[in-house]
Amino acid sequence: MWVVKREKQVFVLRLGHRPFRDKRVTSHVGLVARAFGADGLVISVEDAAVSCSIGDVVERWGGDFSVSVEQDWRGYLKRWKGLVVHLTMYGLPLDDVISDVQSVTGDVLVVVGAEKVPPEVYKRADFNVAVGSQPHSEIAALALFLDRLFKGGGLRKDFEGKTRIIPSANGKFALSD
Amino acid sequence: MWVVKREKQVFVLRLGHRPFRDKRVTSHVGLVARAFGADGLVISVEDAAVSCSIGDVVERWGGDFSVSVEQDWRGYLKRWKGLVVHLTMYGLPLDDVISDVQSVTGDVLVVVGAEKVPPEVYKRADFNVAVGSQPHSEIAALALFLDRLFKGGGLRKDFEGKTRIIPSANGKFALSD
Repeated sequence: MWVVKREKQVFVLRLGHRPFRDKRVTSHVGLVARAFGADGLVISVEDAAVSCSIGDVVERWGGDFSVSVEQDWRGYLKRWKGLVVHLTMYGLPLDDVISDVQSVTGDVLVVVGAEKVPPEVYKRADFNVAVGSQPHSEIAALALFLDRLFKGGGLRKDFEGKTRIIPSANGKFALSD
Repeated sequence: MWVVKREKQVFVLRLGHRPFRDKRVTSHVGLVARAFGADGLVISVEDAAVSCSIGDVVERWGGDFSVSVEQDWRGYLKRWKGLVVHLTMYGLPLDDVISDVQSVTGDVLVVVGAEKVPPEVYKRADFNVAVGSQPHSEIAALALFLDRLFKGGGLRKDFEGKTRIIPSANGKFALSD
């Protein structure tokens, strides 16, 4: 019998999504998660617009990225067997803790909040990580965290999609199946 | 006479901002520009909500970040004397070109689009840079570009604001003047 070693899987849990206000920001969170090498987005509030916009990108641009809804996010966090990393500007500096995060084997759940995140999340997290201690954007924080986690390799992932860009110095070139 | 060597200044030009649709995304672009070490945001369409939300952060959290409006963004691009870097997923990979960008002395204007960016911007840019060739977010692209440009130093900038966070493993601590 062959035992295939499963690679580390990384999921992003988006808390506190408010459909009217956060549609575009949560879509960006999902697209960044996919583009920088994560395996799926979990949102705690159903929003067809977010699922569809990310689903359309996956259909056209490739990869196995999933979007799922977990209304009982507290139960989901409780059941999660891997590492929990909460991105918050109040946490410890990214560059100080990333090697500790990398050294833990198993899957990683990255938690990013929209509105105020309840104190229990700070306690449940194995790491509260600050991508800078200044207010900016959960989208940027997620991108930087995944970039460091995968040592810059997330951006070089090959998605083998129907559409692929041919990098160019000053034009727009893409191939489509 | 002493000649004081002025450090490289970096501004971000946000094109195609649509006030109703892009308010939050453009605010995130501005806050990321500030937090990752840029000196100012230039928007081509006036939007008091964006200027105020970024202004409030500067007032409380410190730094010299500016927000200005240049409706004639074509003229602004024409008059810009430093380097122009346009972030687009159709460009050349970030990690392939960043050392060339760093090696050029003088100020840098980073252009990030909202809606479709006109072909003339691709032509005017000294570098069209792709932060990954997958669709994701101009917020994430800007964060990664500035992080690489400043070799990770942007995140360590000290803003000396009225409010400062004390990094913590699992709590929320801040000092306020």
